[in-house]
Amino acid sequence: MKEKISIVKIGGNIVDDPVALQQFLSDFQQLAGRKVLVHGGGVLASKMARQLGIETKMVQGRRITDEETLKLVTMVYAGWINKSIVATLQQIGCNAIGLSGVDANAIPSLRRSPIPIDFGFVGDPDPAKINVSFLAQLTESSILPVFCAITHDGKGSLLNTNADTIAYSVATALSEKYDPTLYYCFEKEGVLRDIHEPESLILTMTQQECETYKQQGIIADGMIPKLDNAFRAISQGVSEVVILHARNLLSGRGTLLSASRETD
Amino acid sequence: MKEKISIVKIGGNIVDDPVALQQFLSDFQQLAGRKVLVHGGGVLASKMARQLGIETKMVQGRRITDEETLKLVTMVYAGWINKSIVATLQQIGCNAIGLSGVDANAIPSLRRSPIPIDFGFVGDPDPAKINVSFLAQLTESSILPVFCAITHDGKGSLLNTNADTIAYSVATALSEKYDPTLYYCFEKEGVLRDIHEPESLILTMTQQECETYKQQGIIADGMIPKLDNAFRAISQGVSEVVILHARNLLSGRGTLLSASRETD
Repeated sequence: MKEKISIVKIGGNIVDDPVALQQFLSDFQQLAGRKVLVHGGGVLASKMARQLGIETKMVQGRRITDEETLKLVTMVYAGWINKSIVATLQQIGCNAIGLSGVDANAIPSLRRSPIPIDFGFVGDPDPAKINVSFLAQLTESSILPVFCAITHDGKGSLLNTNADTIAYSVATALSEKYDPTLYYCFEKEGVLRDIHEPESLILTMTQQECETYKQQGIIADGMIPKLDNAFRAISQGVSEVVILHARNLLSGRGTLLSASRETD
Repeated sequence: MKEKISIVKIGGNIVDDPVALQQFLSDFQQLAGRKVLVHGGGVLASKMARQLGIETKMVQGRRITDEETLKLVTMVYAGWINKSIVATLQQIGCNAIGLSGVDANAIPSLRRSPIPIDFGFVGDPDPAKINVSFLAQLTESSILPVFCAITHDGKGSLLNTNADTIAYSVATALSEKYDPTLYYCFEKEGVLRDIHEPESLILTMTQQECETYKQQGIIADGMIPKLDNAFRAISQGVSEVVILHARNLLSGRGTLLSASRETD
């Protein structure tokens, strides 16, 4: 039987809130067993962009990562946020190591095709190419990888990458050696029937139910790519995915996803 | 007999010059054997500080690292510069990993005493506390550590740290397991009798000769702390220190330092 490993993704809204982040990192430290942290970027990058006079370019509602923006997000995600999180984890006795996908070629990515839209320096990791032996080597030495959402194309370019996708890719790749649980932590209780009503939490969801909720408009906006990543992970070997509030990491209370009802 | 390892420090002026940096990294890739790279910060941090309206505070001609400046240098050194160097090394087939001293607690530092001058978030590493087993583990796996000049105090604070001092500390610590050569690469041929005359290169220098040159004013300014770090390394187990132009890394032509003439 494979050993368990937890891949925990923490969203930008928690990263931006020093009190919530401190509490979360303390909980993460207490989470038993092998683990990997993936963090989002937060609003610091947008704030810095304004201060530096870097214009945010959007096409069809999506941000374009030009050269200046790539430099900025690498500075903020791989520099300040990543190293601050690692410094806090070290302080509380967690031997963390801050990484981007370029380090030890941990997460090679493919730059997204410029057709139909050129998003610039944006990449999508290939789970099959993730450096599993390196991550295993760290985890066997009780060193905890902390990933920011920057990867590279192997041709010298860094790439801005979605943090949810990194978490999915790492969890999927690690399923080769371990039995991974993927936690998507954010600022809501989980998947809600009514976004304004925490009590409307959906406790379990199969892929089929997810499709129905989407058709009914119950699942919409930013939750769609998160769930797509989650079900992709499940179909590729991740045994459990939980979507939950960052404060509930230790209790695990949130929405538990599964491939189908039979597997419950 | 201990195996050889090269600790190569590259200064900010090379880091700022894309053509020189590319050539240097290509040479570094060709340097045989185990190796570690330490890089300086360059002028990008100062340029960004101006753009962001962060005032540079100086006391007695030395820069103070306040909270805003710490954030900035962490972004620039640990973020953009470190990850760009690693991306280039990966591109040319060198399995590099970008690190700050906080990562895997590689380089714990002591925050500098605020008396007589409070330099702010500035730290000095203790070679005895460097995580040698982690660096050895990387190097035995053919993963090349690339350090930026950011460390931490173990109490949650990142610390701005002199890159020459990091190189000295890492080389000294590694002498426990390896036989280190420390290379200080910069934009001059080595230690020069006449700073404007490359032909005045001093090929070898003992600590005693260094003291004489200092008294004569031949060695002055920024060269003094570099040589102090170099001779400290020699007195603590580093067998060779070479101060040289970045372009001469492979030939090794520069100023070779030794403890005394007898050891030549």
